[in-house]
Amino acid sequence: MSIPTGLPLLTLHEDPISQNCYKIRLTASLLNLPLIRKKYDIKKGETQTPFFQNNISLARQIPVLQVGDVMLPESNAACFFLADQDGSVLGLAPKDRFHRAEMLRWMFFEQNQHETSIAVLRSWLHITGYSHLSESQKSQIEVKRAQGIRALDIMEAHLKDREWFVGDGITLADVVLFAYTAVAQEGGFEMQKYPYIEGWLGRVRRTKGWLDQKE
Amino acid sequence: MSIPTGLPLLTLHEDPISQNCYKIRLTASLLNLPLIRKKYDIKKGETQTPFFQNNISLARQIPVLQVGDVMLPESNAACFFLADQDGSVLGLAPKDRFHRAEMLRWMFFEQNQHETSIAVLRSWLHITGYSHLSESQKSQIEVKRAQGIRALDIMEAHLKDREWFVGDGITLADVVLFAYTAVAQEGGFEMQKYPYIEGWLGRVRRTKGWLDQKE
Repeated sequence: MSIPTGLPLLTLHEDPISQNCYKIRLTASLLNLPLIRKKYDIKKGETQTPFFQNNISLARQIPVLQVGDVMLPESNAACFFLADQDGSVLGLAPKDRFHRAEMLRWMFFEQNQHETSIAVLRSWLHITGYSHLSESQKSQIEVKRAQGIRALDIMEAHLKDREWFVGDGITLADVVLFAYTAVAQEGGFEMQKYPYIEGWLGRVRRTKGWLDQKE
Repeated sequence: MSIPTGLPLLTLHEDPISQNCYKIRLTASLLNLPLIRKKYDIKKGETQTPFFQNNISLARQIPVLQVGDVMLPESNAACFFLADQDGSVLGLAPKDRFHRAEMLRWMFFEQNQHETSIAVLRSWLHITGYSHLSESQKSQIEVKRAQGIRALDIMEAHLKDREWFVGDGITLADVVLFAYTAVAQEGGFEMQKYPYIEGWLGRVRRTKGWLDQKE
């Protein structure tokens, strides 16, 4: 495996329907980094081909950030890679040891408790559609609903007396949590119940370099 | 919130039955850092008291790493904090930008795909016991079994031609994946099917400073 040096070409292998992919586009946009986009349609099985498995992702998952000729899966790791440089614009990845750990705290929370409930319900109810779900999926909706509400409650309580998740400005904690929170209503979550989250979503949208998911 | 400087006192708020807590003890042991342990019994509701919620964790979850008087939840963020210093022993958190992102890739994989299946089944089948599970939990076993096998397959394929998850030595990627993989058989996973994982578990156990989960 070769380790890229200098300023390698950045290619995002993605399906635009996935907010995990959007996170990486949003991070790159906030940092003003150019990103080549290679699009695949998950629904059409384009990430399940032997070509994709052999060349892009053994696990046949998107997104994958290609850095030079090296492949980096996991959306939050890709965002961290993009922001993890000296003098990064906006301080998306703080240099302070404690702030960096706090940022990662929310990024792990996102992958463990938020994405696994809020993103999954949005995928099932908005993309797949209830009538196309398996019995197993239908039986999990209630549990995932409770997990998602719990995650939103934790976020709402945290934002009650602060503008950003960590420190005094936007970091990757905000970026990665924004992606699926901004579309949580598509999974049936009643976002009008969370005024602090709504205010914070607005602050993210007003940040210089912000990019809509449809762009 | 005060940000700790220098060498603050490190206190782990934990339940020893949780391998998420063990991760932090193992990281501290490998780095030869002293850790004060405050134990709570989840089963007895000791993490659900108003004292715990007001002083340790609003979300009433363990582990929480207390750094001075600041509380840091999320096990993998706590491990990152401990290892994230210049000249860290063993290079548990590599300084190289790409290696660091690759390490985080496996740490996010652990929280998103591994802990949510392998740790949950171990908790249900080994700690709670099948006969005490709710109907909802019972109905999720098959899905979580498939997710866990998929995670183990990805690990086995990755370890086929390397000794450690990232680079040439042990990093936090190995530490955090070790915690629940080492007890996966307690969740009913057939670990004899994964010879490369078994070899890697042995390498972790033979690392200087390694600590058994029962210590």
